Amino acid sequence: MKEMLATLGLSSLDELMDKAVPQPIRSSRPLQIGEALTEHDVLLRLRELAASNCAATSYIGMGYHDCVTPPVIQRNILENPAWYTSYTPYQSEIAQGRLEALLNFQTMVIDLTGLEIANASLLDEATAAAEAMAMLHAAQGRKARSSKFFVASDCHPQTIEVVQTRARCRGWKVVVAEWRDFTVLEGELFGALLQYPGTDGAVDPGIVDFTASTRDAGVPVIMATDLLALTLLTPPGEIHADIAVGSSQRLGMPMGMGGPHAAFLAARESFKRQIPGRIIGVTRDAYGKPALRMALQTREQHIRREKATSNICTAEVLPAVVASMYAVYHGPKGLRRIAESIHIRASRLAAAICAHGGLSVARETFFDTLCLRGSANVVQAAFSRARAAGINLRRLAEDTLTVALDETTSDSDLTRLLQVLIQDDVLPTTEVSTLPPSLSRQGHYLQHPVFHSYRSETEMLRYMRRLDARDLSLTTSMIPLGSCTMKLNATVEMMPITWPEFAAPHPFAPVEQNPGYTKVFAELEEILVEITGMARVSLQPNAGSQGEYAGLLVIRQYQAERGEGHRRICLIPASAHGTNPASAVMAGLKVVVVACDTEGNIDVEDLRAKAERHSVELAALMVTYPSTHGVFEKAITDICRIVHEHGGQVYMDGANMNAMVGLCRPGEIGVDVCHLNLHKTFCIPHGGGGPGMGPIAVAEHLVGYLPHHSVLAPAGSDEEKTIGVISAAPYGSAVILLISWSYLKLMGAWDLEQATRIAILNANYVACRLDPCFPVLYRGREGFVAHEAICDLRGFKKAGIEVEDLAKRLMDYGYHAPTVHFPVPGTVMIEPTESESRQELDRFCDAMEAIREEIAEIERGEVAVEDSALRNAPHTQDIVLAAEWNRPYSREQAARPASWLREHKFWPRVSRIDNTFGDRQLVCFCQPVEAYAEPSPNTNVED
Amino acid sequence: MKEMLATLGLSSLDELMDKAVPQPIRSSRPLQIGEALTEHDVLLRLRELAASNCAATSYIGMGYHDCVTPPVIQRNILENPAWYTSYTPYQSEIAQGRLEALLNFQTMVIDLTGLEIANASLLDEATAAAEAMAMLHAAQGRKARSSKFFVASDCHPQTIEVVQTRARCRGWKVVVAEWRDFTVLEGELFGALLQYPGTDGAVDPGIVDFTASTRDAGVPVIMATDLLALTLLTPPGEIHADIAVGSSQRLGMPMGMGGPHAAFLAARESFKRQIPGRIIGVTRDAYGKPALRMALQTREQHIRREKATSNICTAEVLPAVVASMYAVYHGPKGLRRIAESIHIRASRLAAAICAHGGLSVARETFFDTLCLRGSANVVQAAFSRARAAGINLRRLAEDTLTVALDETTSDSDLTRLLQVLIQDDVLPTTEVSTLPPSLSRQGHYLQHPVFHSYRSETEMLRYMRRLDARDLSLTTSMIPLGSCTMKLNATVEMMPITWPEFAAPHPFAPVEQNPGYTKVFAELEEILVEITGMARVSLQPNAGSQGEYAGLLVIRQYQAERGEGHRRICLIPASAHGTNPASAVMAGLKVVVVACDTEGNIDVEDLRAKAERHSVELAALMVTYPSTHGVFEKAITDICRIVHEHGGQVYMDGANMNAMVGLCRPGEIGVDVCHLNLHKTFCIPHGGGGPGMGPIAVAEHLVGYLPHHSVLAPAGSDEEKTIGVISAAPYGSAVILLISWSYLKLMGAWDLEQATRIAILNANYVACRLDPCFPVLYRGREGFVAHEAICDLRGFKKAGIEVEDLAKRLMDYGYHAPTVHFPVPGTVMIEPTESESRQELDRFCDAMEAIREEIAEIERGEVAVEDSALRNAPHTQDIVLAAEWNRPYSREQAARPASWLREHKFWPRVSRIDNTFGDRQLVCFCQPVEAYAEPSPNTNVED
Repeated sequence: MKEMLATLGLSSLDELMDKAVPQPIRSSRPLQIGEALTEHDVLLRLRELAASNCAATSYIGMGYHDCVTPPVIQRNILENPAWYTSYTPYQSEIAQGRLEALLNFQTMVIDLTGLEIANASLLDEATAAAEAMAMLHAAQGRKARSSKFFVASDCHPQTIEVVQTRARCRGWKVVVAEWRDFTVLEGELFGALLQYPGTDGAVDPGIVDFTASTRDAGVPVIMATDLLALTLLTPPGEIHADIAVGSSQRLGMPMGMGGPHAAFLAARESFKRQIPGRIIGVTRDAYGKPALRMALQTREQHIRREKATSNICTAEVLPAVVASMYAVYHGPKGLRRIAESIHIRASRLAAAICAHGGLSVARETFFDTLCLRGSANVVQAAFSRARAAGINLRRLAEDTLTVALDETTSDSDLTRLLQVLIQDDVLPTTEVSTLPPSLSRQGHYLQHPVFHSYRSETEMLRYMRRLDARDLSLTTSMIPLGSCTMKLNATVEMMPITWPEFAAPHPFAPVEQNPGYTKVFAELEEILVEITGMARVSLQPNAGSQGEYAGLLVIRQYQAERGEGHRRICLIPASAHGTNPASAVMAGLKVVVVACDTEGNIDVEDLRAKAERHSVELAALMVTYPSTHGVFEKAITDICRIVHEHGGQVYMDGANMNAMVGLCRPGEIGVDVCHLNLHKTFCIPHGGGGPGMGPIAVAEHLVGYLPHHSVLAPAGSDEEKTIGVISAAPYGSAVILLISWSYLKLMGAWDLEQATRIAILNANYVACRLDPCFPVLYRGREGFVAHEAICDLRGFKKAGIEVEDLAKRLMDYGYHAPTVHFPVPGTVMIEPTESESRQELDRFCDAMEAIREEIAEIERGEVAVEDSALRNAPHTQDIVLAAEWNRPYSREQAARPASWLREHKFWPRVSRIDNTFGDRQLVCFCQPVEAYAEPSPNTNVED
Repeated sequence: MKEMLATLGLSSLDELMDKAVPQPIRSSRPLQIGEALTEHDVLLRLRELAASNCAATSYIGMGYHDCVTPPVIQRNILENPAWYTSYTPYQSEIAQGRLEALLNFQTMVIDLTGLEIANASLLDEATAAAEAMAMLHAAQGRKARSSKFFVASDCHPQTIEVVQTRARCRGWKVVVAEWRDFTVLEGELFGALLQYPGTDGAVDPGIVDFTASTRDAGVPVIMATDLLALTLLTPPGEIHADIAVGSSQRLGMPMGMGGPHAAFLAARESFKRQIPGRIIGVTRDAYGKPALRMALQTREQHIRREKATSNICTAEVLPAVVASMYAVYHGPKGLRRIAESIHIRASRLAAAICAHGGLSVARETFFDTLCLRGSANVVQAAFSRARAAGINLRRLAEDTLTVALDETTSDSDLTRLLQVLIQDDVLPTTEVSTLPPSLSRQGHYLQHPVFHSYRSETEMLRYMRRLDARDLSLTTSMIPLGSCTMKLNATVEMMPITWPEFAAPHPFAPVEQNPGYTKVFAELEEILVEITGMARVSLQPNAGSQGEYAGLLVIRQYQAERGEGHRRICLIPASAHGTNPASAVMAGLKVVVVACDTEGNIDVEDLRAKAERHSVELAALMVTYPSTHGVFEKAITDICRIVHEHGGQVYMDGANMNAMVGLCRPGEIGVDVCHLNLHKTFCIPHGGGGPGMGPIAVAEHLVGYLPHHSVLAPAGSDEEKTIGVISAAPYGSAVILLISWSYLKLMGAWDLEQATRIAILNANYVACRLDPCFPVLYRGREGFVAHEAICDLRGFKKAGIEVEDLAKRLMDYGYHAPTVHFPVPGTVMIEPTESESRQELDRFCDAMEAIREEIAEIERGEVAVEDSALRNAPHTQDIVLAAEWNRPYSREQAARPASWLREHKFWPRVSRIDNTFGDRQLVCFCQPVEAYAEPSPNTNVED
């Protein structure tokens, strides 16, 4: 540390803090969150908390089902740092492993839903339904003749609520009604949402007539559905649905008290430019070899900014990979066998109940969920007996309960169920399906060889290992992504998430069953309150974008209650991340852009002018702190004051919170709402592109408006004032909150602050080392950056060198590129975080310097840019093993340009990817095997 | 399966069984061990069993201490198939990762013990002590003037018992006495064993005078010691010890009810040719690059056969890797800090007890273990209070108990201890060391950079990942090792071993505390009894070699009781594995070799003749079945009858049990004793060279003689008749018994038999495919092999091709070589097991055929053998990236000679290793960094 400080011309960390972090924004008091615990003690605490959760069996259903995570997938994906520490696959050449897994996911969704295109992935079924609604509205654009949206009353209640929240702020009307009684008239609706099978378990053949008539009325249909059920049922695409959404949870992901799980959205191909979230597509590399990458990047919301139709950013990559591997492992026959076995058990249970009397089976045709009706007394008695026996059923109405079976349900479970339901235990053995023949699935699915090749555990293991060897993750080297805070994800923090006591609970299980969870939520909220200096935290938003959306809704609701519902202007600095304006649009706000000065700071005069101009309508300012330019702006307190003076609220994007923890508090500098990316600052690993969590913290006057949940209300939420429901589950992706809780317990107050200080030291050290090669664009007044630094590459344009050349060449050195072109085109943004050692920082800087020298050779005219290692990067095994070699640099220089690569060489799987090729003809499912026949490296690729 | 059978000209699996397995040896009745359970159900059962073990805290000590397994090591070594599924590093070029970890282990042991050479590793501290005794005796050879061996009475009791058992059968006398009262006279002893610190915790400065006088009397000293204590204490090498032994358990391995843990043996350099077990040494590869391999291979027991001084074969590689990583992660300062913290807590506890009275501290100087004395009543009361509070102490005598603290002991644990010990809870805060100044460690240790480079979890993770990427394991491809049965190690079987309920128990905890374990032992024994057709099983031997030794002792004891102690001849076929004669020697038997016929079968006439000739003295026949030649010998029943007729017993080596399970039972064909390699047939993974388990099964008349344990008697053992104690812990490496238990529960009767049938099918399929290229040497009468096949390469000698060339060239194809030169020099033995898919078998056969074609090119004179890819294999990145390329084959042909290598290429880390170079100057510790400076690939290496 001393040496690093000396490089900066400083003698102490305090001196650096004084220079980098303006005094006025520094916290007056240190964190008060207790001492750091050892890893051993944290595990002991976690075990105690785990033991306090009672192991009830849930047959609640509602989109959450117990299932079997194949151990080989649990250990080698979910618990494997090679998978969970990798980043969003923006640098496709070093992400072919997870891209293949995600393509498998899309293929599975496309096949099972019978639609043409699918994404990978969305946050949960409820938000996916809301996204689908918004997508339908956007697709119709000005043509939309209606702002009414139909939702069938037999959708899951949390889905209805999330859709309602989303519609409310856009000014759309949601009509919730029984579809069996509803007639769709032309021009009356812009879309309809159905649940198939229904939340009550019904598999009703009548739905086909309904969707047909809806289609005939020109109204597109969204079906929320269940992938496992679709292995037996006619797929939505064959019964007039235009879009299908749902959760892949039951394909191998534990319920985890609500998540994380990968939701999906599939649609007809005509929607391909409107689908929110990420789509993986097939393209080719510079040598014509098939390669994968995220397709249609121009569709991403950060380009659209205020024209956004979705603010979705984080995906659920890790859960999507698990679900895809579950399908790969079981194959179509295996999935079908699992579904049949559940269905047959459900049918036997139904037969036993029918035979007994007392309770009747209210829906004659079902997949896995029985709807049982009886007198209120009988139903109440059965429900109580179940509860006493540690069995959770769903009380659908006074006289109705449902029982949803799952993959883990055994015959002895059925016997227990019969005992509590009808106090009998005679179980029929006859295996009769009660599925309606008209909805019985015809035809094959999952025909691609990948779903037929890995039937033994060993083969499966080797397949997963082959894929992860193609991906660069934190297990290989630093991933210096600015604004994404790729820091240590300590193993101990990851351990509890697969313990059954935390992994098994159903999100709607009675709250008293899981005191361990309740305690974790409360303690986590308390610590985050202390860190942010705000009044209360909501843990519901399950991504940063969801946090932004929820936070802005809180502001709007607060203003509406004060009679200021007309405030709809949201000021956003030009340097903001694209998600900010997109979220503002989602929340029904109008974006006004505030200029930045040449230093990258908010132009205070422009802000003042715009605040004044829009004073009456001013709703909020969205600001990132420290700025997206990596600088602590001194003016932040002034900025907040100006906004408040004009009746606006200040929303802080917490993406850069890693530079603040322990040093300053959003609440103390005038922020009213902020979200926290738990997958950045608070150590939830990036998962290859998700899951994340984006809780929000609010000031005292906003507490009442925080998200609610009518199935299971989050502690302290206010049913009257709330903005409504944001995510499907009350605590979002609850199980990964354990990661952040563990991190905070391990750190304690002093270490948290020290981590921030080291993060700032590391960033300044890297900035100082790289500045002579790649000028650092922005600094604070005293000449220091915050926790990240922007390096300018625009000066190399005249030599023909682009940011991409540096990014791809870094792969040859065994590094992932920093953030490219954000926030300033032509630059890279580097955030080393506190987790990387001096040694690793030096190694990365050495690589950057070596590349600078390669650029210099081009600048000096010694090497033509087209022939350079930079332009031809990354170099694959195919390239360096080729017989011919006519390049001005050696094979060794191509593939192992630095000494550490002799210790360990990470090989990019494909050479530079041709993005546009694949976008011209979108292919987002597994190609037939012939398509992968490799052209020889020297094949000339036609354009 | 049909296609594979068709290749063999057969139409059903039954037909194959009828032809491969002689009818007379087939079992008359199928296995009766119940139905197969699903993975989900096995986990549920295991969780129930785990929950029934009570979580007591053990301060018992005796060589077993609770400790903290750093989570990053637990997840990424212990629970990582890349580490646990790799094989013993015979093929060094693709094993540099674990070889480096083991070299780190040896360096740590050498540094901490202050001796010059160390192995990696032995089975447990007690057997290491017995090995050291045997080694001393062998080193003195005919010069030994005494057959008496001194053992200090303050050694751990299980160590004393294991040494006594070992000495008894060799005819050596063990003198157990208090060393403080003992005077060593010249010529009176061939060695002395001391414990330092003593089993009562004493760190007695007087020991130095004792060892000095022992040395002066010409008697070598063995010290059993504690590596953690040695971070603070003068090392054995500096206080006249010639040998140090001990366990590395407390360096990060859970107690696991007794194991597995890596024991060590360090010695002065003069013993380098006598040290049992494996020694990793530094050498160089064909290009002069530093490389590691097992040194002094000629020293291995399988070469020595009947001249063996040890039968040790399996090491404890995985636990040794864990211990080495623990030291790498903590470094010398960290280890010292842990030791100091334990010691200071022990001192504070002692001070509190002294201050209180009632109990006195009997040993004034100690490291971590307090010896407390009081009236029998007071001691009994304290002991009972502790037991009631879930605290296990050690009752050393009526009036004495000991309390051994460990890394996990916290201040609140101390308070609880004080409450039960003296019903007080006043804990002194003053931190005074009570170590005797004369034994305070001086000087540095663990100075090598590897112990100073990985202080952050991320750096540690990356180091471990770099190492595992250098090793070929089952996660890459089939490892077709004959006789080693490298089969699937299912993840679900591995899961329970790191659950705290199974990982935490102390092996000497009261048996009633761990009913879950008791049940697992009983059920496992029962199933193994059913599989073998024997009367009872002992789970104590913790390696196959230990099983052989124990089984032969059982035979000898049985004969001795019948007044036939003079029976000392052991017949062993010429084809036997070298461990067999070595074990016979260990058991005090004389080996007589029985010839084999040209078919590889036992020459029955020779056997008959030798049995007759030695009829009076005949103790036993040791036989492997099916034979080491991979054939079911029809004569086996005759063979057993002949031996029995002459009063001998039949011992069966269970190495090939994978060809028998469910098809035939040793007990039904006349076998009296057999061992089972649980790490072969019963799915304990090979761990990179261990741990293993070698329980023995015996016929009814031998039941009483099975191993015993006086600290905690195994269920059903007979204190009177027993052969004594074989391993340090009553159930050997108990925690990994869970793996075999899980395997057997997952399989059930039908699948177990089917697995055997498929193993035989796979072997015959491979034999059939390879025979045209590499003639299959032995077959049964009907032309079929059993579960493995020997391929003859001797025909290629005239073309200059050796078995090694094939073995090394296979690495380029991504494969580990089959067993080489065993049982027949110039051949390879291939055992595909039932776990490999047809696809993988074909891929392997394709590689073998492609190599055959490369040989043909040499035979045809198209390529000179010196220039061939075969002779120059394996090809590293250094080689194929070199600027110059003057070979008759392409770079692509060198490194990626098959299509699948474009999907995934495993790169050998070094080129062909020069074994003799390293043996000329043994270096078995980490070299200074300069030694690793890489010579350029073209450096001419001097010889």
